[in-house]
Order: sequence, then structure tokens, then C-alpha cells
Amino acid sequence: MPKVSEDHLAARRSQILDGARRCFAEHGYEGATVRLLEEATGLSRGAIFHHFKDKDGLFLALAQEDARRMAEVAADEGLVQVMRDMLASPEQFDWLGTRLEITRRLRTDPEFARAWTAHSAQLTEATEGRLARQREAGRLRDDVPTDVLLGYLDLVLDGLVARLASGHAEKDLSQVLDLVEESVRRRD
Amino acid sequence: MPKVSEDHLAARRSQILDGARRCFAEHGYEGATVRLLEEATGLSRGAIFHHFKDKDGLFLALAQEDARRMAEVAADEGLVQVMRDMLASPEQFDWLGTRLEITRRLRTDPEFARAWTAHSAQLTEATEGRLARQREAGRLRDDVPTDVLLGYLDLVLDGLVARLASGHAEKDLSQVLDLVEESVRRRD
Repeated sequence: MPKVSEDHLAARRSQILDGARRCFAEHGYEGATVRLLEEATGLSRGAIFHHFKDKDGLFLALAQEDARRMAEVAADEGLVQVMRDMLASPEQFDWLGTRLEITRRLRTDPEFARAWTAHSAQLTEATEGRLARQREAGRLRDDVPTDVLLGYLDLVLDGLVARLASGHAEKDLSQVLDLVEESVRRRD
Repeated sequence: MPKVSEDHLAARRSQILDGARRCFAEHGYEGATVRLLEEATGLSRGAIFHHFKDKDGLFLALAQEDARRMAEVAADEGLVQVMRDMLASPEQFDWLGTRLEITRRLRTDPEFARAWTAHSAQLTEATEGRLARQREAGRLRDDVPTDVLLGYLDLVLDGLVARLASGHAEKDLSQVLDLVEESVRRRD
């Protein structure tokens, strides 16, 4: 496939994802009808669903885009920095409410749950890698297994997602994140 | 009002709440139609909405019931114990997914957000009281303000609610909760 066409496909894909993100943020998962997705992306349903199988496909692609961005930060600076970034730009996470809306399906729809887990594995792996390097460098507390520290950071991230989605991420959460960061570190 | 009638009203109210909790757990907030609520409670819509103004009213009453139960435990044993109890009986929290579904409304519907905050204030107050007593007894770390510790525990609770609602509350979270508990305690 010639380079120009690939660029065009990538640009179109990104145009669709940006529009869909805004549309989900404004209307929620159920509320984001095909007509509203057309409006938000400026493209026809034919064009949208040429790139993505269905609404689930769009949603999972957005989750994957988030996971990839977060994984980059997590690999270099850790999961707490990911959370600090979220706290600094809550408006970029307006669509997170949609993530919560679909939570029920993770329990009731095994196929969807599998796809979701695959898409979010990237972030988990990046955080695991970072924690392993931190442990090696002697910066991690050594009285708690790494998988427990990972589970702890993941749990706090889930809490922050819920908080941002409800619009209740008060400023003093940065001190809370200080506490979280300090509680995985080695104490001197 | 004679005692018998009060008892009858309370029993009826509790019958409705139990049925509604099951119905929300199974069908989600949107999916819990009036017809399904009638089936789950064994009562007519007339009877249901004699006791509760509308579906929001039912939902908020369930949230308040949870908050009251959790506040009792939080006052005596702390918020981490509330979380341990949730982890021990996840099936009692099947309806929590519904809490996540409505998260968007906390941002978009100020009246609903006000009612929700009022209903959940009980738990916050109980936790605040417990933290104040723990601080007085010298059991709390003294390098972090109480409101930051409260914000921290609240954030972890939000994470646990999200985790339970998605059916991904793995067993090793009890070690995670050990870490959470330890990180608010005074170190000797």
C-alpha cells in the first residue's frame, strides 16, 4: 500500500476517534447514537464503520489509545505520574464516565471483557516493568511483593478514574497522590 | 399513626428496596424498567411509587441504605474494615455497577448530585469521626493532615467499588488493603 494512502487512513482513523471521544463524553455510551457519532466526526456512518466494526469497536479503540499514552508515561515515570497528569488535565478525561457506564458489561459479557483486558494489558505491563526496575534500583519498599504494589496502584487509579468521571477530583488529591507514591517507596 | 401501621410501612419499604437492589444488579439502572421493578418487588407500580417518588428516589434510598450500614462499621472499625467486608461478600455488592452507571449524572445533573452528596455524607462523617479519635489516641501518622488521609481512604474505596462492580476483585486485594491500612498508621 502506498505511503500516502496509509497516512490518509491514519488521519481518518484519528479524526473518527477524536470525534467519538467528544461524543461519548457529551452523551454517554448509550446516548452516543450513530447519528450523533456522524455529527461529531463529520463523517458518514459508512466511513465510520469502515474503520471500526461497531460502537464497541470504537469504544475499545479509545480505551486502547488511552492505555498506550498512559503506558508511555508509566514506563518512564510510573503510574503515580500518570495519575498526576490526569489530575492536571481533567478535561481530557471527560469521556471516562463512559468507561464506568460499561463496567457492568465486564461482568456480563465475556467477549467484551476479553477484548477490554487485552486492550488495557499494555498499561499493566508498562507499570510492571517500571516497578521491576525501581525494585532493582533499590527504590521500592522490599517488605511487600511487587504484584501487591501493582494491585495497590491499579486500585488507586480505578478510584481516580471514578472520581474524575464524577467531576469530584478536588485539588487536594495531589497530596493524596504524594501519600500513595511515598507508600510504595523504600524508607530510609 | 398506630405502631402496626408504621411497622407495615417499614416492612413494605424494605421489601421494595430489596427487590429494587436485585433488579438494578441484574438489569442496570437504564435496564431496570418499571415492569421489571414490579416483578422484582412483587408489588404494583402504584405501591412502589407511593413509597418512592421515582426511580432516582429508589436509587438514592439504596445508596443511603449502603451509606448507613457502611457508616456503622466505619465509625467503630474504620473505612478499611468497610472495604474488607466488601471484599469478603462481593455478591452483596452486585448492584454497585449501577452506582457507576449514574456517575455521569453527578457531573451533568446538579439536583441529582446534591441529593447524592447529602445521602453519602453519613459515611464521610463517620470516617472523619473515627480518624479524629484515632489521631487523638496517637494511632494515626502525624505528618499528614486528617483531611488528606480521609481523601486517600475515599479514593481507595472508589477504586474498590469500581473493581467489585467489574467483577475483578481478586483475592490478593486483602494484602493491598493491609498496605492501605498501614500507610495511614503511625510508625513506631
